[in-house]
Amino acid sequence: MAYPQGIQIVPSRILDDLRQLRTFGSIGQGVNRRSLTETDLASRLWLCERMREAGLEASIDGAGSVVGKTPHSRRILIGSHTDTVPDGGWLDGALGVIYGLEIARSLMESPGSGDTGIEVMSFIDEEGRFTPLMGSRVFCGEIREDEFAELRSAEGVNFSDVLSQANLSDKPIQRLDPGIHIAYLEAHIEQGPVLDNKQIRIGVVTGIVGASQYRIGFHGQKNHAGTTPMSLRYDAAKAMFEFVGRFTKYFNDNARANTTWTCNEVRTEPKAGNVIPNFAEFSIQYRDLSSEILAILDQGVEDICKEVATGNGVAFDKEKTVELVPMAMDEQLINRIHSAAIERGVSSHKMPSGAGHDAMVIGRYIPAGMLFIPSISGLSHDTEEDSHEEDIRIGAEVFARAVSNHIDHLDCFSRA
Amino acid sequence: MAYPQGIQIVPSRILDDLRQLRTFGSIGQGVNRRSLTETDLASRLWLCERMREAGLEASIDGAGSVVGKTPHSRRILIGSHTDTVPDGGWLDGALGVIYGLEIARSLMESPGSGDTGIEVMSFIDEEGRFTPLMGSRVFCGEIREDEFAELRSAEGVNFSDVLSQANLSDKPIQRLDPGIHIAYLEAHIEQGPVLDNKQIRIGVVTGIVGASQYRIGFHGQKNHAGTTPMSLRYDAAKAMFEFVGRFTKYFNDNARANTTWTCNEVRTEPKAGNVIPNFAEFSIQYRDLSSEILAILDQGVEDICKEVATGNGVAFDKEKTVELVPMAMDEQLINRIHSAAIERGVSSHKMPSGAGHDAMVIGRYIPAGMLFIPSISGLSHDTEEDSHEEDIRIGAEVFARAVSNHIDHLDCFSRA
Repeated sequence: MAYPQGIQIVPSRILDDLRQLRTFGSIGQGVNRRSLTETDLASRLWLCERMREAGLEASIDGAGSVVGKTPHSRRILIGSHTDTVPDGGWLDGALGVIYGLEIARSLMESPGSGDTGIEVMSFIDEEGRFTPLMGSRVFCGEIREDEFAELRSAEGVNFSDVLSQANLSDKPIQRLDPGIHIAYLEAHIEQGPVLDNKQIRIGVVTGIVGASQYRIGFHGQKNHAGTTPMSLRYDAAKAMFEFVGRFTKYFNDNARANTTWTCNEVRTEPKAGNVIPNFAEFSIQYRDLSSEILAILDQGVEDICKEVATGNGVAFDKEKTVELVPMAMDEQLINRIHSAAIERGVSSHKMPSGAGHDAMVIGRYIPAGMLFIPSISGLSHDTEEDSHEEDIRIGAEVFARAVSNHIDHLDCFSRA
Repeated sequence: MAYPQGIQIVPSRILDDLRQLRTFGSIGQGVNRRSLTETDLASRLWLCERMREAGLEASIDGAGSVVGKTPHSRRILIGSHTDTVPDGGWLDGALGVIYGLEIARSLMESPGSGDTGIEVMSFIDEEGRFTPLMGSRVFCGEIREDEFAELRSAEGVNFSDVLSQANLSDKPIQRLDPGIHIAYLEAHIEQGPVLDNKQIRIGVVTGIVGASQYRIGFHGQKNHAGTTPMSLRYDAAKAMFEFVGRFTKYFNDNARANTTWTCNEVRTEPKAGNVIPNFAEFSIQYRDLSSEILAILDQGVEDICKEVATGNGVAFDKEKTVELVPMAMDEQLINRIHSAAIERGVSSHKMPSGAGHDAMVIGRYIPAGMLFIPSISGLSHDTEEDSHEEDIRIGAEVFARAVSNHIDHLDCFSRA
């Protein structure tokens, strides 16, 4: 075995690094560090420097992603992101990057005899100032360099301009190479309440759910709410309410325990209590690990829209605004994380990830696995987001054990 | 009988007067004549002049209402309003006033032998630039002169200022006197689709519906729509949708054929499809002729709010924003109008009025009756509002017959 005691990490160094990283863009308890702002660039230089101190070969690539490698011919990729949403949390993304840094640092301190090392990445712009999951998509070749010029933030900032201002335009782009990068592992805060609610230390992510989202509008006829009998109405709001009632039943009949669905962005027109609405609009979204379930729910939306529109004498229009394909995590890596939690003697729970992560991109090309630690009250994308120190430490130990067990397995396998 | 042939009106004069009145504030096919604007004041002077030409004793009173009387010691009051909503229809209110003018004019041309005459009124501000149903409420003493100073339009215009600018401040206020005003009759366009839809000439109004309206808000907890399992949500929109579903059943179990209900002003917060809403708000309104039905529905709103809030772990707040007591029309006057339609050989339909009218104020003090003529497609409070000329003529004939039959009855009764 390359690491008979596993990779011996020092959890206090993780907390130190996370606290230092938190000073870049600190706001209240949280952080405002949108990708490629001055604050974000400063944090990337800091991260690069930390990686070099750890003995890694480190650089910022031509898209802004930070990469640090141990000197091995094949490497487990450990990554996440250090950019944040506006007024976001201090651990969202940062946790997984710093876990990777500490694991690579520990490995460099006590190098084993194997061929497999670590490559740590902080992917640029996971939170989509320019486009969501950008760094991992660039890394996997899903966004080409000639497409950078098109990217523009909501405030009208060109991605290519900030790149050249930061002297990054001419740097090489790091690319996924399945011959070198043999697995991807990402640790992240849960961003939901499940682990905190069940008092469980480790979430073993079985996959990242896919999602469908529609904007649906019903179009009826405006009329006086007092003088128009119920039988002569073409009430857009009534159609909407009926849709939701019928979809509720359809969902309960067709979805699974972990499927989620949400209606929001509801509005009716005109805004007057004594007028029958001629327009009602809302968004409906559902998420599941199974493409089949999503397809069944899509069909339900279509059928129920038609039935309700016909039944109420109104028209409807709908538009699919989100379509995300589910991404299953690798079975071997799922088991690796699960076993590591058992070895460490802590509780774990197999669960889907309801939020998107870089692992959903990279998992399309190489085996990917994810570990969650609990988020206090499930708070996320909020300056109040936090996790207990003990959960941060235990998460790191389980994650490091999973990584070193996987390295051992790979090294044994390569020698066999 | 005072009028053996009935009061012989000339319907073409009604159409002439209505068309002249339409020129005051004409906009497209409709009229913009908010009460006490220059346009409205000019139309009041015109109306006064028309009344005087008809031989009536006419004036504008100290609140802006126009009154014209035949020289009889007791009078049937025929009224409605000549002010409009912004960009309103040409017949809404105007029809009933001009019907009254023509009936009084015809009576003056062929005076009968009876003691009962006509008093025609155009009540100020029925549409509520300052306060709804103002003229009839002032006439009945529900708004005192010392309360005028408080009245202010949404644009910030003081009622007392426009009164004095129009030199009306010192004019006497016309008052209801049940010893003189022995009945109130009002003709109006239906403002709804029932008569047009059924191809019926005359609506015999059985009463003016009461209404309850609430603004209801559900308060839950904002959360990530992907990472929060269904069982750990406090979804304000879900509570709202459940409320409407359950109230729909409750309404169907407890309401009557003519009861109406409407939800509008629906909105949810925050406005993002991937966030579980922490706030959902809507208005709910229902109308019925029976106070008991309204009370039963009020109780349903209260009970279902509580059940739905408890079931979803959310809070709610509700506020009654409208409470109108139903006003039954006088049985004798209902029958008078119904019989007049039969005598004239045209179809009629007994129906509630879903909209408010001056008759709902005056009916609290003296017997009141109302007649509707069809509105094309039920359009109202819209410049496109219109009625067929034939319906305007037939409505006037039936209304005049009902008035003269009632005068005959009163005169016979007084001699008996």
